[in-house]
Amino acid sequence: MAASASVSPLAPKSYPDMPEIDGVRFATAEAGIKYKGRTDVLLARIDAGTTVAGVFTKSRCSSAPVDWCKSILKTGSARGLMVNSGNANAFTGKKGKAAVELSARIAAKALDCKPEEIFLASTGVIGEPLAAEKFETVIDGLAAMEKPAAWIDAARAIMTTDTYPKVATASVDLDGETVTINGMAKGAGMIAPDMATMLSFIFTDAAISADVLQAMLSGEVDGSFNSLTVDSDTSTSDTVLLFATGTAAKRGVEPIASLDDPRVATVQAALADVMVNLSQQIVRDGEGARKFVEIQVEGAESDASAKVIAMSIANSPLVKTAIAGEDANWGRVVMAVGKAGEPADRDRLAIWFGDVRVAVEGERDPDYSEQAASAVMKEEEIVIRVDLGLGAGCARVWTCDLTKEYVAINGDYRS
Amino acid sequence: MAASASVSPLAPKSYPDMPEIDGVRFATAEAGIKYKGRTDVLLARIDAGTTVAGVFTKSRCSSAPVDWCKSILKTGSARGLMVNSGNANAFTGKKGKAAVELSARIAAKALDCKPEEIFLASTGVIGEPLAAEKFETVIDGLAAMEKPAAWIDAARAIMTTDTYPKVATASVDLDGETVTINGMAKGAGMIAPDMATMLSFIFTDAAISADVLQAMLSGEVDGSFNSLTVDSDTSTSDTVLLFATGTAAKRGVEPIASLDDPRVATVQAALADVMVNLSQQIVRDGEGARKFVEIQVEGAESDASAKVIAMSIANSPLVKTAIAGEDANWGRVVMAVGKAGEPADRDRLAIWFGDVRVAVEGERDPDYSEQAASAVMKEEEIVIRVDLGLGAGCARVWTCDLTKEYVAINGDYRS
Repeated sequence: MAASASVSPLAPKSYPDMPEIDGVRFATAEAGIKYKGRTDVLLARIDAGTTVAGVFTKSRCSSAPVDWCKSILKTGSARGLMVNSGNANAFTGKKGKAAVELSARIAAKALDCKPEEIFLASTGVIGEPLAAEKFETVIDGLAAMEKPAAWIDAARAIMTTDTYPKVATASVDLDGETVTINGMAKGAGMIAPDMATMLSFIFTDAAISADVLQAMLSGEVDGSFNSLTVDSDTSTSDTVLLFATGTAAKRGVEPIASLDDPRVATVQAALADVMVNLSQQIVRDGEGARKFVEIQVEGAESDASAKVIAMSIANSPLVKTAIAGEDANWGRVVMAVGKAGEPADRDRLAIWFGDVRVAVEGERDPDYSEQAASAVMKEEEIVIRVDLGLGAGCARVWTCDLTKEYVAINGDYRS
Repeated sequence: MAASASVSPLAPKSYPDMPEIDGVRFATAEAGIKYKGRTDVLLARIDAGTTVAGVFTKSRCSSAPVDWCKSILKTGSARGLMVNSGNANAFTGKKGKAAVELSARIAAKALDCKPEEIFLASTGVIGEPLAAEKFETVIDGLAAMEKPAAWIDAARAIMTTDTYPKVATASVDLDGETVTINGMAKGAGMIAPDMATMLSFIFTDAAISADVLQAMLSGEVDGSFNSLTVDSDTSTSDTVLLFATGTAAKRGVEPIASLDDPRVATVQAALADVMVNLSQQIVRDGEGARKFVEIQVEGAESDASAKVIAMSIANSPLVKTAIAGEDANWGRVVMAVGKAGEPADRDRLAIWFGDVRVAVEGERDPDYSEQAASAVMKEEEIVIRVDLGLGAGCARVWTCDLTKEYVAINGDYRS
């Protein structure tokens, strides 16, 4: 399966300049795992002293690389990252476990470190054994090719049905020095055909202890990658890894070793920017997507309740098909609020499409204008806002429309 | 919105003979609520002494008729049922409450009973006030037209996007006499465009006390109407009502007044047949459906756990689009098991498409045949079976494929 020929109309219009991050170098190669004529393996050499944090899919059927990363994450340190596209190494049983062990040994030999310092991710078809020995044939070339700042090349090598590579960057001033956070992601849905899936790798040159790094990452996942949906399907392979090389310490930036450090908030805000940016890029590349939609829920009994209601709206096939049809069908939003199972009072509900209030106090807005609401629906980016009128809980999530192209991409794939 | 021009290819090939049920008479009329040139209102006259049981949507944004039925159900007795299509009287605020009160008064006058003996259901567009005064103009004609056995006409009057009327019948021998259970249903999904929705009305001539009737109905809903999904969306208006006229008592059939009565099991089994039959007919009329799919889950830790996993598979857009594409994509079944959040052990999982085992012990079946699996997927009716290998819990649910036609029906509706 080649990447789609045409780039999503919702793709960002340009790439950001990605500053170099000292301590990380990339190489990509064509290992021929499944695709022909494109890169499908990414190797990152990461300097000694790098700390690492990770979050993974909650699937009960997680992939072999996810199991591997979870098992080595407790050391909190990393020397390498190897990612392949074309095969997810998921639901591959004992062969899958052997494949991750072989992959880690091959990469460790090239990077002169221990296998358990190599983080692994795989994305692509499920149930097919991964021919990890193919890495052997390209790994020496990879080690020779390493470049410090090939972010877009790196992001391209991990694509499956993505129509464009996804990168983001942010920088902050710490102790008078600039510290950078760079990230990449792949994914054309919470899940793409055959469980090609959501992966993201983020790097900073700040020196941050592993426990603080994990707390920062875990604290931002809910508001970013866990706030997007393309099709409500959760992959077996979702992986987010955050690496801190600590090389900024050489420039006098003091290491961050405690959550009480006042600089945590500064770094975490920049990290949130990168993660939200990458999350939105994934939705913008949602399979068949033609509309980017933000769902805002406020006035809920709690933030958690607001999130459940927002995801109920964002995942509703009837809401998503209405958006595809540019139909200001607010009745379906009411339905999705009602089915969420969270506290809601029909007669306090208000709903906006963009700036147009379409419903209030449990019925159609007395000033409802079909023309004004329809104009909002013709936009490429749409905000749907719901006020439950019960409390102060709020949430925002991102989704896309459900088009015939989504059905075509996912229904016609293997036939 | 007219009913679709072409009947679903999954529709039953013929209608059953629907025996008369003493104590129930139907009439239908064209009230012009929304549709032109077709019946859109059903009136049932129900004889005094009839008991009634009901189950309703769990939506927090339930429709005005649902609220009305819930409030009068506690009496346990009914004299009339009035149903309209074309307008759901949902999210209509105070106007909606006034409309149900007016509707009940109009029907009660024609049937010479109290308004709170009239059960009401509405299905169709949401958010539009229901012009209940239109019932006034047809109600006298309705009362005059009453026929004892116009089941298919009745089922037709309550259709929205349904492509065919849905009826089912079963009979049992009680005390040497035949007792009948007749039912009708409408729905082209858990929810159809603009929240036209699932309604079902079932009648029996057995004499059954209201509390026993409610227990029987509640006991069968989970395995029938709550085991189907077209698009995972829950309507504001779902209503199932079961009426027992008790007229069989005139023929010497003793009333059933206790759950300890050994005849309860006999009647309940026949009731289950009718409810399962109607449930499957709804899935067979799923919007855009071209495949009827039964999902069987066994070996779960409990029946409840099996049901959650079965619905996770049945609702997965990626599973449903794969079925539409006749793609034996069992990896997506693994994904849906994994995301359900219920106990599952990847390495004990086995999956069958029809009789073909495609995966076992956490990996592709060693004898996997793409050709054999693909042949199953070309069938019009497909069974997907999952054995979790953990316990004795099992469940079966019904779904359909997700086609471009579903997106077209729901995306193009108002434009």
